[in-house]
Amino acid sequence: MLVYGRNVARDLLKKNKKIEKIILQEGFNDNEIFSLIEKNKIKYKYMSKKEIDNLAKGVHQGILLYVSDFKYQELNTVFENQDDFIVILDHLEDPHNLGAIIRTCEAASVKSIIMPRDRQVQINATVMKTSVGTLDNINIISVSNLVNTIKKLKDNGFWIVGTALENSVDYRKIDYNGKIALVIGNEGSGISDLVAKNCDFLAKIPMYGETNSLNASVAAGIMIYEVVRNRK
Amino acid sequence: MLVYGRNVARDLLKKNKKIEKIILQEGFNDNEIFSLIEKNKIKYKYMSKKEIDNLAKGVHQGILLYVSDFKYQELNTVFENQDDFIVILDHLEDPHNLGAIIRTCEAASVKSIIMPRDRQVQINATVMKTSVGTLDNINIISVSNLVNTIKKLKDNGFWIVGTALENSVDYRKIDYNGKIALVIGNEGSGISDLVAKNCDFLAKIPMYGETNSLNASVAAGIMIYEVVRNRK
Repeated sequence: MLVYGRNVARDLLKKNKKIEKIILQEGFNDNEIFSLIEKNKIKYKYMSKKEIDNLAKGVHQGILLYVSDFKYQELNTVFENQDDFIVILDHLEDPHNLGAIIRTCEAASVKSIIMPRDRQVQINATVMKTSVGTLDNINIISVSNLVNTIKKLKDNGFWIVGTALENSVDYRKIDYNGKIALVIGNEGSGISDLVAKNCDFLAKIPMYGETNSLNASVAAGIMIYEVVRNRK
Repeated sequence: MLVYGRNVARDLLKKNKKIEKIILQEGFNDNEIFSLIEKNKIKYKYMSKKEIDNLAKGVHQGILLYVSDFKYQELNTVFENQDDFIVILDHLEDPHNLGAIIRTCEAASVKSIIMPRDRQVQINATVMKTSVGTLDNINIISVSNLVNTIKKLKDNGFWIVGTALENSVDYRKIDYNGKIALVIGNEGSGISDLVAKNCDFLAKIPMYGETNSLNASVAAGIMIYEVVRNRK
């Protein structure tokens, strides 16, 4: 995986993450980063700004890092670790949302996030940046089929809570005790029909204006902290 | 102001916003957008992809729009409209956060958002996109000095609530009745010392993991819905 930017570089180098190699722009002169590269004995080479522009497709600030691909977990880790509060992502698209949700989960001590393998933004450089180092404390579980996964969670005693505008109850009226899996819907279309049908509860955050939805990571934050409030 | 992308174009054209002119990439062939341009009788011309790339600095999907600059309001509108729940932004940097906060404010019927003129992200194309059309229902108030503004709000009966890690109380323990101005801090450094000193209450969202803060728009969403819950 290719990541770039000085903040991400500093963070990865300090945590001694598996960095395979680094490319620096000719004239790169950040002394802190240089000493971290030397301390961690990581291979690096120089390229022109133009060559790096072609590789980075974004604001790279003169540094590109090749890091080992992110390691996803299997569903079984939820049961092995006896997680009792997890979050399921129903095909999110925006890496900023994914990063912010990972950060909120870590803050609320959610231990696992389940996401589908296809039509779902995966862990990339933007996600790493917006999750500000919290990715290390969470299991990201990749599954091929959300509905099958939800059925397995139910078989293991989980209550499935989704969010929806219709046929739903005020999010403050639900009892979140027990094992809870909270489903966060896609930015545009929300939770898919088949997933909604498999939820035990559908929650609604009240909307008092003309818009009928919140940003996905904001809605996730409000729901996650509602579960926490109800349980702690 | 220069904005770009087909979704934004469609939205602005449907709402008949003040679009000064449009630039299309040679070969542009979105029929819906074409008919909206003709219906609204907006001037347009063609340019090569390379020329548009130079102007857009982002994913433009072959369409650039020059729209009238966003119209900010004065602080007085808060008092004239007898607003009783407003949000103050203490130097936010990220347009995605600003857009998501505007959307949450509209959903929670917050009528005004106050932001400083300098060292604060202003209303731009990304903000318009992430606030998904809610910008029309909110007064965005631009001020030169936040501390002076807070003093004027206090003189007019507002309670000022900030968020902070230290010297703060659990956000669920505060009485949010009366006129409330909620301060949202900068993504990196939070609320500035001088603003914090002028707050009547400092609230803390509990953190159970290793991270000590949430994404700014997520924290704003949790706080805004806490005020709503306490009042409605």
